[in-house]
Amino acid sequence: MKSQASDIQIEKVKQEDLKPKPDPEKLLFGHQFSDHMLSIEWNSTSGWGRPLIHPLRNISLHPAAKVFHYAVELYEGLKAYRGGDNKVRIFRPDLNMERMYSTAERAMLPAFEGMKAYRGPDKKVRLFRPDQNARRLLSSAERSVMPTFDVHELVECMKKLISVDQEWVPYHPTSTLYIRPTLIGSEPSLGVAKTHDALLFVITGPVGPYYPTGFKPVSLLADPKYVRASKGGVGRYKMGSNYAPTIYIQIEALEKYDCQQVLWLYGDNHQVTEVGTMNFFLYWINEEGEKELVTPSLESGLILPGVTRKSLLELASTWGDIKITERDLYMNEIIKGLKENRVKEIFGAGTACVVSPVEKIIYDGKTYNIPTMAEDAPVTMRLYKELTDIQYGRVKSDWSVEID
Amino acid sequence: MKSQASDIQIEKVKQEDLKPKPDPEKLLFGHQFSDHMLSIEWNSTSGWGRPLIHPLRNISLHPAAKVFHYAVELYEGLKAYRGGDNKVRIFRPDLNMERMYSTAERAMLPAFEGMKAYRGPDKKVRLFRPDQNARRLLSSAERSVMPTFDVHELVECMKKLISVDQEWVPYHPTSTLYIRPTLIGSEPSLGVAKTHDALLFVITGPVGPYYPTGFKPVSLLADPKYVRASKGGVGRYKMGSNYAPTIYIQIEALEKYDCQQVLWLYGDNHQVTEVGTMNFFLYWINEEGEKELVTPSLESGLILPGVTRKSLLELASTWGDIKITERDLYMNEIIKGLKENRVKEIFGAGTACVVSPVEKIIYDGKTYNIPTMAEDAPVTMRLYKELTDIQYGRVKSDWSVEID
Repeated sequence: MKSQASDIQIEKVKQEDLKPKPDPEKLLFGHQFSDHMLSIEWNSTSGWGRPLIHPLRNISLHPAAKVFHYAVELYEGLKAYRGGDNKVRIFRPDLNMERMYSTAERAMLPAFEGMKAYRGPDKKVRLFRPDQNARRLLSSAERSVMPTFDVHELVECMKKLISVDQEWVPYHPTSTLYIRPTLIGSEPSLGVAKTHDALLFVITGPVGPYYPTGFKPVSLLADPKYVRASKGGVGRYKMGSNYAPTIYIQIEALEKYDCQQVLWLYGDNHQVTEVGTMNFFLYWINEEGEKELVTPSLESGLILPGVTRKSLLELASTWGDIKITERDLYMNEIIKGLKENRVKEIFGAGTACVVSPVEKIIYDGKTYNIPTMAEDAPVTMRLYKELTDIQYGRVKSDWSVEID
Repeated sequence: MKSQASDIQIEKVKQEDLKPKPDPEKLLFGHQFSDHMLSIEWNSTSGWGRPLIHPLRNISLHPAAKVFHYAVELYEGLKAYRGGDNKVRIFRPDLNMERMYSTAERAMLPAFEGMKAYRGPDKKVRLFRPDQNARRLLSSAERSVMPTFDVHELVECMKKLISVDQEWVPYHPTSTLYIRPTLIGSEPSLGVAKTHDALLFVITGPVGPYYPTGFKPVSLLADPKYVRASKGGVGRYKMGSNYAPTIYIQIEALEKYDCQQVLWLYGDNHQVTEVGTMNFFLYWINEEGEKELVTPSLESGLILPGVTRKSLLELASTWGDIKITERDLYMNEIIKGLKENRVKEIFGAGTACVVSPVEKIIYDGKTYNIPTMAEDAPVTMRLYKELTDIQYGRVKSDWSVEID
């Protein structure tokens, strides 16, 4: 039997047991949860079970469950937005679910892998998408040797969950409902091996405005001795194992250097990869004198193929006045660009914040000021506005999926 | 209040509910568990709670617990042995607990970091331990930004657990009771950050003889595109995040190449690091014509400081007839040694198997036969015998800790 959204079983919290909704102005990320969750169990013999929406409750696992010992786990993060029209929308859930679960040739990544931008005789910048070179990319579930799920059915299940808890989507212009699909290996046996039992669950919770008092630029610590991901590793997958090792370094960056984020470098040439848990973007005048938006290429395998990253690239590529480039990028290029006053804006991009402007990078014992906010970050802000206009339904787009 | 072994509270399974013990000849690693477990809860405000020994039971956690999302988890593995004298002993538990939890200057690692062997004028080989260069090494708990525990008290708690379940230590000359201390981040909040709640638990279970029908040498796949750990990463810590990414590659090695283990290489020069989840050992005649036992140095940070590794080095260093060397080791040296018939034995070393002889390495499209078993692996077998003699109490040693 195929496990599908039409089989979903819903056990609702009793009206009198519904939790009070918190003040949308006072939300702390990841600390408040909605009344319900989605669970789907899997076993290698019987396959996926029936999708269940039920009251949020603890997960009970044998202490030998593989998730506790070998980090057999992966997740996604996306959001539901309440528009001025009071409709609730989720943003490109198909892309998150493809990254997590798809076994098919994936629409998301090949389109941007090795993408080249070029300027035509009409002076417009266009993207060349070498689809013929598209490589087969694994989803997080495949790379973790965990079961895959039908992407469409999973989006439908999530939509039902959001629908049941739609009152948890904040009535607020910048707060949102964060959605966290998770897959864990639950087989109760020790030994580093494929799991024969798994649990897919989705929890949601309201999260506050990332910038309640206006954009607050961050400082980054760029120290090549700290590595987030390496070649041959799993940096491009949203597996739990990418995160635990970064906590110690984050704390060191904050406590020793007063930096809110780590700029993750790689290799002897100090290749720029990510910012904290975000993708990295640079807007500058390149050595050829062109206005250019650069982000590290996915080709290296070191970088998470962010949905926000992809969306910002797609938006900027329609403007026609800026060259868009995905390529390997090195610290010495950024330093040279800074010295020559060619660097205009640097920002991180991700689901939580959309964009996070950078004002400072500590690198090689020196502090480099980044002029991102000097002219109010016009490129960063244009991207922010265009993306949030779609997310909140102010601009119609098929990237936004309405919840009934 | 300090959480200590003398405060331990024991809730025993009722006599009639004790599980039947499995046949010690038919044990599958990690699938059978003893009747009891040890649990100690921690919270950043109240500290460690009272140690509890209680019936083995599920762990119940909020679905947002950090362990499920960000792999905030670490573990250890050690064993209890029943000797011919019917006494139960555990092997060097202080070393495992130091690796896991210690905040003190650690006895275990500095002693072997950068250890050099030299041959004296009396022809004997001695170790030079540059204690003055000993570096402060973090325990797994510190690197994971999780709470530490008093090593001595934790060993005492474990001894009580083994004592309660001592009938689970197999009455068998080569089966053992495997002990799995684990620490997980249980704070129920999303966000990649330090956990404010944690659970330390220890489960145990009988495991069979690793070689029920005599030593069975393994084949290794050595492909530099697969990386276990990298510089700046956490390869030297027993964190869960080191394991999930290896499962896919293990399966590929077995299915595509019929190799039971992966020989993990690193970097452009194909540095040899580990074998599966074991440390790597090479016994050969080196280019100077000396008999030499070589294992990769811990200095690189790529390698787990194994307790079996350390113990084998310490045993071999007393022999006096073999040079013992810890240093970076590269595939081209091994290939050259094979061509010149200087390679005698290659084996992996770890708690599960003690030693695992290697008969084949697939590397760079070629299959290299390793003559480990050609003369019945005299060095490997001598190490195996000396270590298991201590573990099973046939030879007295303060490495073996008796359980009352």
